[in-house]
Order: sequence, then structure tokens, then C-alpha cells
Amino acid sequence: MGESAQGLVLALAGGVGGAKLALGLSKILPPERLVIVVNTGDDEEFHGLHVSPDLDTMTYTLSGLYNPDTGWGIAGDSFDTLEMLNRLGADTWFNLGSRDFATHIRRTDLLRNGATLSEVTAQLTATLGIRHAIVPMSDQPVRTVLDTDAGTLAMQEYFVKHRAEPVVRSIRYDGAADAQPSPGFAAALRDAATIVICPSNPFLSVAPILAVPGVRDAIAGHGGRRVAVSPIVGGAAVRGPAGKIMAELGADVSAVGVAREYRGVCDLLALDCQDAGIADAVAAEGIEPAVMPTIMETDDDKIALARQVLELAARAEATA
Amino acid sequence: MGESAQGLVLALAGGVGGAKLALGLSKILPPERLVIVVNTGDDEEFHGLHVSPDLDTMTYTLSGLYNPDTGWGIAGDSFDTLEMLNRLGADTWFNLGSRDFATHIRRTDLLRNGATLSEVTAQLTATLGIRHAIVPMSDQPVRTVLDTDAGTLAMQEYFVKHRAEPVVRSIRYDGAADAQPSPGFAAALRDAATIVICPSNPFLSVAPILAVPGVRDAIAGHGGRRVAVSPIVGGAAVRGPAGKIMAELGADVSAVGVAREYRGVCDLLALDCQDAGIADAVAAEGIEPAVMPTIMETDDDKIALARQVLELAARAEATA
Repeated sequence: MGESAQGLVLALAGGVGGAKLALGLSKILPPERLVIVVNTGDDEEFHGLHVSPDLDTMTYTLSGLYNPDTGWGIAGDSFDTLEMLNRLGADTWFNLGSRDFATHIRRTDLLRNGATLSEVTAQLTATLGIRHAIVPMSDQPVRTVLDTDAGTLAMQEYFVKHRAEPVVRSIRYDGAADAQPSPGFAAALRDAATIVICPSNPFLSVAPILAVPGVRDAIAGHGGRRVAVSPIVGGAAVRGPAGKIMAELGADVSAVGVAREYRGVCDLLALDCQDAGIADAVAAEGIEPAVMPTIMETDDDKIALARQVLELAARAEATA
Repeated sequence: MGESAQGLVLALAGGVGGAKLALGLSKILPPERLVIVVNTGDDEEFHGLHVSPDLDTMTYTLSGLYNPDTGWGIAGDSFDTLEMLNRLGADTWFNLGSRDFATHIRRTDLLRNGATLSEVTAQLTATLGIRHAIVPMSDQPVRTVLDTDAGTLAMQEYFVKHRAEPVVRSIRYDGAADAQPSPGFAAALRDAATIVICPSNPFLSVAPILAVPGVRDAIAGHGGRRVAVSPIVGGAAVRGPAGKIMAELGADVSAVGVAREYRGVCDLLALDCQDAGIADAVAAEGIEPAVMPTIMETDDDKIALARQVLELAARAEATA
């Protein structure tokens, strides 16, 4: 294997940024060497259907259905179903395409028939030809809830309905105390040689995963290499409200702030080249910095970053 | 009012044929003078969603959304949702358009939140601008089940999946014993001056309505005029499998056979002009025949037949 890490890679991810790196990992690792664990704290019921935004972004990305123009949904999808629901009096502030609805209909039907979210996700990803494991963080409901100056908001309400505008005072993960890691997640926590924290929102995507009982401890005590990629580049989030929320919660909107969030669950933090100047400050937080290009636009970018992250883990392993 | 009947008109209907006459009635009667009661024996769950084929045909017809080319669904609808469901491994033998799915999603969501089928139907029809009352025959589930040479089949399985090909041996209406007429149906049975049995399948559309406890007795003892329109013209059903099923069940495939089915719940039977020769045979069944053009292609045809049916009831009333 040369400079690439050996053994199983466990990737923790939220939505778009996480899916980009996960796609890169899936292009260079065989299915048996990668488990992608996805945040379900954003899951919500719309029109009586179970919607899992991050699982769907990951699934659509790895299956090639993803719409790069919007950042959500399926490329070329129509909105016939949503428009008709609106006409029928439903509240349709959350955008859902007609093909996307099929995913939610199918998921809800299978869940109501007794399947777990893990089982449903395995079935949906398999039917779309995805060979790598995409696994929800938990089969029990965990819901990210934001206390804001516009009131208490569920994640999608905050992010979509209120366009991430309200000031966030605190975040909690409802249901986390009663949740367990999904079976696939628990097995990967036990077996992984390398843990990769993808460039997702530390508070809204990664923290809900870490809030599932036993997860933080398992990662903290993990014997292998733990590498994160900073979602904050040049003092701002590459995408989404991570920077705004970090600032509102009093965190440093930089890779240093990210390093502080990941203290105890991460050995190495990949920083973008434009943040080379704060590498020492990251090191001062007890996390080893590694400077590399982290902006992923093309599939080649995603593969290149995935390769660098795995090489970083392998080098760290060799020198450990 | 001259030659038109006075008072409330209660129309009993199934799918396409019934919806045509109901549309005609709705064009000449104000909302407070018409209640359209629709068969729900064909209702079925697809993909975890409650589908009410006859209620939807009626709703789409009266709202102008109806697709005249297919006989079901919404004109111009796409099949994005269904195609994606198929890709996700769902069994998609029952055609459902993307906009049509919105109806089933909304209905299911409202039902799961505790609304009755009557309440849901009132809400859906109102949002589509329908001012006349469309009412399910019952808020409890009644399911038309056919015993055939291909096994026991639910109505949609028989009609769509098996294209109405299996030989029907008997028909039952599961759940009918535990059902009640919906509140709107019960009120109309009490208040109607005229009952119109639309040209729907006697066994698959009208019989389930009559099978709801108390309905047959209420119509049998009804003091007003009861007019039916034969769905069998020239020895064959105008549309659908009514003729085939009547033959398989040993009934005469003619207006005479229809008259026999409606004995006790009907005073007058409208026959198409081409069946003028069997008017006497209808009379011999104790039901007064009335010969008129009954084939409805254009909206003008629907209005003309509705007008003739109401005039027939008014004349009968005047001579009673």
C-alpha cells in the first residue's frame, strides 16, 4: 500500500462538504475499506414523510444523482409534486423535488413496515448502485435544535425556512441521550484503523454524531489515526452557516476554532494552504496541523484531498 | 323551477362514468342542491400512501384537472416520482403521476393526523376550488375483493395489475359490516329529494355503496324519486369491465340486467336510445324505463344528460 493507510477507514460526515470528501474516499478505497457515517440530526418529517437531508446528499453524491447547482436534491428534478402539495394547502417551505419525494416515500414506507433507518439506507443505496457503506449515525431519532433570537428552531427550520439568519445562542441534540450508535457505526468504531472527520459543520453536522452516547469516548480512546479536515478556510466556512454559528457561539472562526472543537477526538487537522499562517496556533491546541489544498470543486479535487488525508494518516502511523 | 326537480340531489358514483354525470349535475345545480357520494371500495395503500381512485377521479373531474386521455390522474402529469420509486426497488405496477402523488401524500398526512376521510376530502376539494360536496361513502375502510380464477384480488390488483382479465366468481365488500355511511352521506340520505345512481359499474362501484349498513334500506324506503342511468349500452359497458363481470356473475349484460341489480333502490332507469328495444323488458323488472342519449363525450353531453335525468325525476314527481 506504500504511503496509503491500511485497514478500515471510518468517515464522519454531514452534508455537502462531507459528501465531497466521502466521494473522493470512495473513489480510492474498495467498499470493504470504507464506512461513511452520516449525521441524522437534521432529519425531519415533511408531509408525513421521513426526510434525511444529509443521508440523501451523501446518497445522491455517491450515486451520481446529485445536483451540484443547488447543493441538495437530484439533478434535473421537477417540482410537480411540491407545487401540487402547495395547491392542496400544504406548507411547502422546504424544497423537495418530485424524484426526491420518491426517496422519502420509500424510506417512510419501509420504516413504517418495521425496517431500521440503517436497513432502509442500505437498501436505498444498494438499489442506486452504491457499493460503499453509507450508515446513519443512529437508528434512533436525534434532532439538532437551535435556541435562537427567533425562538427554538429545528435545524431545517433554522437553515431553510429562516435562511440561517437568526442569531444562535445554543444548540442541543434532542433524543441523543436515548440513542445508540447504529450497528454499522458501532462496528466501524471498533474496527477502523483510521477515522476521518470530513469538512462538515462542527456544531451542526459533527457534534450530533459525537453526541450519540459512547461515540465521543470511543473516538477519544481510539488507537488508530484520527484526521479532520477544517471546514473553515480563510476565516469563513467554505459553504453554509458554520462560520456564522461559530462566531455567535463565541468560537474562533478559523481552523484554530475547529481544532478546539475537535480536541480529544482528532490527532491531525488538514488546513487549507491559505491558512498556513495559523498552523502553529493549531499545533498549540494539541492537534498536529497539515497544510494542503482543501477546496474541492472537481471530482479530481475530491480524490486528491482524500488521497492526501489517507497519506497523512499513514505517515502519522509510520512515525507513531 | 319548471320541469327540474326541486330540493337536494344525492348522486351515487364510482369513477369515470359517474364523474361525467356528476360534472353535468354540478354545472346545473347550485352547491347547496347537490351531494356527490363516491365509492371508496377501490381505495388502497400504495407505498404507504392512501389512494382513493374514485374520489380522485371525481375531484380531478370537477376541478378541471382530469386527464381525459387516460381516464385517471391529472392532465399533463409527469412520472418522475414513480420512476424513481421503481429505481429504488418499489413495486410500481399502479400508475401514479407526480402531481397525483401530492394528493395521496396530503391525504395520508391529514389522515395520520386524525382527520376523517370526509374531512380530508372536503379540504382537498375546497383547495382545488370545488364548491359542490364530494363525500366518501364511508369514513371506515370498505374494500372490494374479487374471488377470481387467478385467486383473491383487491379491486386495483384485478383492474390494473391483472387488466381485469381473470374470471370473476364472486365479489365481497370487506369491512362493510363495520362501516357506517359518512356523516355527509347520512345527512343526504335523510334530506335528498332525488337520488341519482350515476352510470357506474353496478357491482364494483354502486354495490359497495349499497353495502354500507343502512344505505340500501334508506334508499329502499326513500320517499323521493330514484333515477339510475344504465352503464350498459347496446349489450356492453360504455367503459371498463362492467359487462365482462356481469356476464361472469350470470347477469344479463344489458339495461335489463342493470334494472335487476337496482330493484328496490331505483324507480326510473335511463336507457340509451340504442336500447329502446328493451325498454319493455326493463319495465317488466318493475323499473320505469326512459329512453334518452346517455353517451357522454363532451361537457355539453354531460350537462344535457344531467338535465334530462333531473327532468325525469321532476316529471315522475309531478305524476306520483
